Amino acid sequence: MFEAIFKQFKEKRPLVHCITNYVTVNDCANALLAAGASPVMADDEREVEDIVSIADALCLNIGTLNERTVRSMLRAGRRANALGKPVVLDPVGCGASRLRTETSLKLLKEIKITLVRANMSEMRALAGESAHTKGVDADARDGADAAFIKNLSLRLGVMLCATGEKDIVTDGIRTHIITGGHEYMAKVSGTGCMLSALSAAYAAVSPAGPVLAAAAFGLCGEMGYKEGLGASSYRAAIIDQLSLMDEHKFKEFKIDVY
Amino acid sequence: MFEAIFKQFKEKRPLVHCITNYVTVNDCANALLAAGASPVMADDEREVEDIVSIADALCLNIGTLNERTVRSMLRAGRRANALGKPVVLDPVGCGASRLRTETSLKLLKEIKITLVRANMSEMRALAGESAHTKGVDADARDGADAAFIKNLSLRLGVMLCATGEKDIVTDGIRTHIITGGHEYMAKVSGTGCMLSALSAAYAAVSPAGPVLAAAAFGLCGEMGYKEGLGASSYRAAIIDQLSLMDEHKFKEFKIDVY
Amino acid sequence: MFEAIFKQFKEKRPLVHCITNYVTVNDCANALLAAGASPVMADDEREVEDIVSIADALCLNIGTLNERTVRSMLRAGRRANALGKPVVLDPVGCGASRLRTETSLKLLKEIKITLVRANMSEMRALAGESAHTKGVDADARDGADAAFIKNLSLRLGVMLCATGEKDIVTDGIRTHIITGGHEYMAKVSGTGCMLSALSAAYAAVSPAGPVLAAAAFGLCGEMGYKEGLGASSYRAAIIDQLSLMDEHKFKEFKIDVY
Repeated sequence: MFEAIFKQFKEKRPLVHCITNYVTVNDCANALLAAGASPVMADDEREVEDIVSIADALCLNIGTLNERTVRSMLRAGRRANALGKPVVLDPVGCGASRLRTETSLKLLKEIKITLVRANMSEMRALAGESAHTKGVDADARDGADAAFIKNLSLRLGVMLCATGEKDIVTDGIRTHIITGGHEYMAKVSGTGCMLSALSAAYAAVSPAGPVLAAAAFGLCGEMGYKEGLGASSYRAAIIDQLSLMDEHKFKEFKIDVY
Repeated sequence: MFEAIFKQFKEKRPLVHCITNYVTVNDCANALLAAGASPVMADDEREVEDIVSIADALCLNIGTLNERTVRSMLRAGRRANALGKPVVLDPVGCGASRLRTETSLKLLKEIKITLVRANMSEMRALAGESAHTKGVDADARDGADAAFIKNLSLRLGVMLCATGEKDIVTDGIRTHIITGGHEYMAKVSGTGCMLSALSAAYAAVSPAGPVLAAAAFGLCGEMGYKEGLGASSYRAAIIDQLSLMDEHKFKEFKIDVY
Repeated sequence: MFEAIFKQFKEKRPLVHCITNYVTVNDCANALLAAGASPVMADDEREVEDIVSIADALCLNIGTLNERTVRSMLRAGRRANALGKPVVLDPVGCGASRLRTETSLKLLKEIKITLVRANMSEMRALAGESAHTKGVDADARDGADAAFIKNLSLRLGVMLCATGEKDIVTDGIRTHIITGGHEYMAKVSGTGCMLSALSAAYAAVSPAGPVLAAAAFGLCGEMGYKEGLGASSYRAAIIDQLSLMDEHKFKEFKIDVY
């Protein structure tokens, strides 16, 4: 299945409209290009409907949200819904401030979201549980919990990709547990944001696209790692691997399906 | 001629005021520093006139334009004009939204622009033609067209640098066709933005500066490429080459003049 | 002493709330992660108090200031003061525009700043002297001047870290002159911003933290340099060194105390 999605992806070269934070926006742009997609970043309310109309998917990331860009997210999201284009939400730092939690819930309520990509702390905050959010990074106290994520997916009615030591991708019916990545990814800013953007790109090709995105990105993190590598070189290596990914590497995927 | 401009450039170390997008702004800053110029990014309306007064050139890039920054662009541009400093416009994504097309035309109308640096899709949108704009990347259907660019330059009364497989730099009288670069540059975000910033820096030294900028940047793209290089490493290699550029490499330039 | 601070730092993994410019924000995030701290970037007025409450330190950087973010800086700063958390100010480009000079002084007046990290041109502008500010980079005409910085520290009642060929860190009583770094760092955007963010992270552990931050960062600049290295690879090497730093390298520190 992945081979077919990957082939379609390479042919379509999906254009992903990102309304995203200014911290990792360059990583998202380069990750999309490296993987074979195209980025377009636009956040002015007067143009987001035009831009989402020519895009194949929309990625909303609240990493450095503000009043102006949240209005643009809502507007772009509604237009994407009207046009039947997939919308990925990355609720960065959900739980770290009331604004982030409320904005995440508002986006989930007012827009039909295709996929939420978040770490476990953010997922718990989305669920209304008391999360141990430490800024934008997942707290080690929050262990991955496939059952919890599956139930949250059913409750929210949205596909979820919870990333951590293992990644959990579920639509509430079928749950994929992906083993991969490398713990050193925690030393690199933007890995979550890049995966969210890539998930949007793959969602433009197939509903199963986000599973492929998570497995492929994890594999890039694994293959890019070398003992003694500095953190900045590792960041480059991850994006390099995205550009060197091919279908022969899919046999390295470690995915359990439940 | 290039040797003299290059020498002046190294001595002057032009300070370039960029009002630019938050996607590739870091690449622009690092490209300018690597090449031997200095960047200053400032977009608050209350300070852009001060900043442009101490700068040697202004680069306006609409990659993530919004109401506030467009006002600042107009203000900075008028001040640059009053002070006789070169202004480069990079109409990123022109044609992808009404806002971008209209803003590009407004900037061209209200400011005396020294150079527009854009890809062929954006150039066609500027010309009012139906462009096949796919986000911010040039569409393969738009082939480079020297005659078209030359006529557009005459019509707009502004020097143009149209980048693509070949780069066309023309003031409507003399047209330079630059062969160089590498197709892998399409896998790297920000190459166009970096060239625009560099063109502003070189324009601060000589009206012919943008020709040198395009030839030098293309050569960096060519020299930075190696078979099997990942996209992020290639991005670094391009900027590395900028910092390693010297006048001995000018003999590698492939420029035809018409 | 440094060994103890370093050990505490590694254990605490300080969370640093940065309200910073969009040029080098990614470098700051990656430098913090590489060093073993955590970044959180948030600049909306409605959330900065929440965010600073969960953070261990606050870093205010005016590199691309605007009306909205300056309001957020003031609000976050006051909250940090109320909570007794260290606040680092990086007055980027102070002296380059009235807005930057006035904003820097306003932040110093309305917030109890723990440390100002700036280059000599910016320090002179802070002191009200006519600075030879050339954009955001220090002007070579401004030589490092330990006596001047010491007096300024006493006058402002704030610890200062003035970076240049030599770095001067002083609280007005004890002055540290740090020899290190490499002149090639001037070819890399964001080294000052990264040091400011790291200084905030270390200040969360000890009042002497900023001395360690400056010495460690300088050493990273020194160790990352290799003859013939391109500027972008050098940037990566500096951040790599941050992630590879350990207490065994402290014996390479060249610090004179007066």
